Amino acid sequence: MGEFDLIERYFKRPAKQAVLGVGDDCALIQPTAGMQLAISSDMLVEGRHFLSTVDPARLGHKALAVNLSDLAACGAQPLAFTLALALPRADEAWLTGFSQGLLQLADDFGCELIGGDTTQGPLNICITVFGEVPPGDAHLRGNAQAGDDIYVSGTLGDARLALEVFRGTQSLDAPAFEQARLRLEKPTPRIALGIELRAIANAAIDVSDGLLGDLGHILKRSGLGAQIDTTWLQAAQTFGNGQAAGISPQLAALPFNKRLDFALSGGDDYELCFTAPVNQRELVHAAAWEANTPVTRIGRMTEAAGLVVLDPQGQPISRRFASFDHFA
Amino acid sequence: MGEFDLIERYFKRPAKQAVLGVGDDCALIQPTAGMQLAISSDMLVEGRHFLSTVDPARLGHKALAVNLSDLAACGAQPLAFTLALALPRADEAWLTGFSQGLLQLADDFGCELIGGDTTQGPLNICITVFGEVPPGDAHLRGNAQAGDDIYVSGTLGDARLALEVFRGTQSLDAPAFEQARLRLEKPTPRIALGIELRAIANAAIDVSDGLLGDLGHILKRSGLGAQIDTTWLQAAQTFGNGQAAGISPQLAALPFNKRLDFALSGGDDYELCFTAPVNQRELVHAAAWEANTPVTRIGRMTEAAGLVVLDPQGQPISRRFASFDHFA
Repeated sequence: MGEFDLIERYFKRPAKQAVLGVGDDCALIQPTAGMQLAISSDMLVEGRHFLSTVDPARLGHKALAVNLSDLAACGAQPLAFTLALALPRADEAWLTGFSQGLLQLADDFGCELIGGDTTQGPLNICITVFGEVPPGDAHLRGNAQAGDDIYVSGTLGDARLALEVFRGTQSLDAPAFEQARLRLEKPTPRIALGIELRAIANAAIDVSDGLLGDLGHILKRSGLGAQIDTTWLQAAQTFGNGQAAGISPQLAALPFNKRLDFALSGGDDYELCFTAPVNQRELVHAAAWEANTPVTRIGRMTEAAGLVVLDPQGQPISRRFASFDHFA
Repeated sequence: MGEFDLIERYFKRPAKQAVLGVGDDCALIQPTAGMQLAISSDMLVEGRHFLSTVDPARLGHKALAVNLSDLAACGAQPLAFTLALALPRADEAWLTGFSQGLLQLADDFGCELIGGDTTQGPLNICITVFGEVPPGDAHLRGNAQAGDDIYVSGTLGDARLALEVFRGTQSLDAPAFEQARLRLEKPTPRIALGIELRAIANAAIDVSDGLLGDLGHILKRSGLGAQIDTTWLQAAQTFGNGQAAGISPQLAALPFNKRLDFALSGGDDYELCFTAPVNQRELVHAAAWEANTPVTRIGRMTEAAGLVVLDPQGQPISRRFASFDHFA
């Protein structure tokens, strides 16, 4: 199978919204007049971002999901994406699974594969995603205000818990492991929530390197500090729609210190962390309900610099939390 | 040096045209109302697309140049690009050179770095580039017409010649090698020519895998054949602006069969191959003059399927020409 057969067989589909899709020098899209184009790029490397044993369909899902998560953080509606793929060899079973997982998620979000590149090399998946957002509506990291509430969507820490089971440092019964593993391998991009929050949230970021590290970017850009509560780590909560909020039952079963580590600096969560004015609490909850996505209020932005984590009794926790850095 | 310091130090600059540049979840651009957005992605892998010994500044240049070349083929004006980079380690000398070469070319073409990703892994450079083109003006591979003239820009075969010198199968004196090597390591994207040809050319492609292979894509998409002359391979020509056209003096010094191989199926040329109606010849030459870019007429599109190469006496050459395929 040659390079062009490979593209033809696994990745080429008729263009829907795009003016011109896969197969020319460039793809062509016609953005909606007046809208801003939101663009994000993520590169996934074997052994670094995923295990070599991962199910290729889940890997296809995740490769696009982590990019859609960036659009969600900006409040953008997904339009299209490009895929550049370096493969050690053209493995048909792998390509079948990968392309199915990828294109299924693409269909779920109306996000069309419009082009890319395929080459031989160590396994590397680079996706660039495009979305639209009305001018002024994108949630930026630097827009948080002192006094803002801080929220997270969904649950945190499960992806790290699953990774630690793979590493052999934690053990779980099979159903709990499957739940945690799904969060690691098949994260849900919070697109609907990002869009519902357009006129409500001040700042947002997607949690990929661990909550505290990612929230740190909002602090730095906004020139503010934050206080984070940990009462929400005391037990799994249930959102109105029946989904777990804050932490999952399997995370709640861990010792408190592990919950702190995994939820606050675990990484690979692909949830949204966002800030909104205190007088918007009802609107935040209405947006979460509309998007069918749990949200949990976890703290507030402060004039005083620094990121303070309070224990459930309200006392500052002095320990260090690691954040993921590819070159640290 | 951590991941965020690395981005800050080497790749972050204030946004110019972009609404929001490097450093948030997404970049934001505001496309010109009514224009189509042309998008292309290319991934470069060490050992496959470049030698590990290449000067990092030239590599930075080339990584963006090969992407701009795709915009040129579409007749698009460059706007912006994202860079995703997997690096074995954060090597400051390498990053300094790479970012300088990359950003110099970006400045030359007003193409702004707006975002991307940085991770640890086997060296891999993935750039996605964005340009604008008026609706209907993009040159597509499938628009060639029977009877169209076929042209190439600049000179073909030098990049392959330089590669063969590196491989030890060819030798050149130092000045000739430096000329050929510049063509391999510092290709010039033909943006100005692509734009000048907007209303003139019917179909275009950028020559990256070798002329015959890339022209084959135009044939397949257009449902046509082509006859290619080789009289232009008999000697180096000089275009009106003093630049070499067709083949360079160093290629012209090779045996004719080598010229055939290197110019017709060498690869890495990053010149434009395009077709235009016979009655547009004067306009093609005016466009080339305006763009200060040599063009050479090398054949014509035919109703009859198949790609026929004629020797300088007008007889079909029956030998096979290889084209580059990453998985063949």
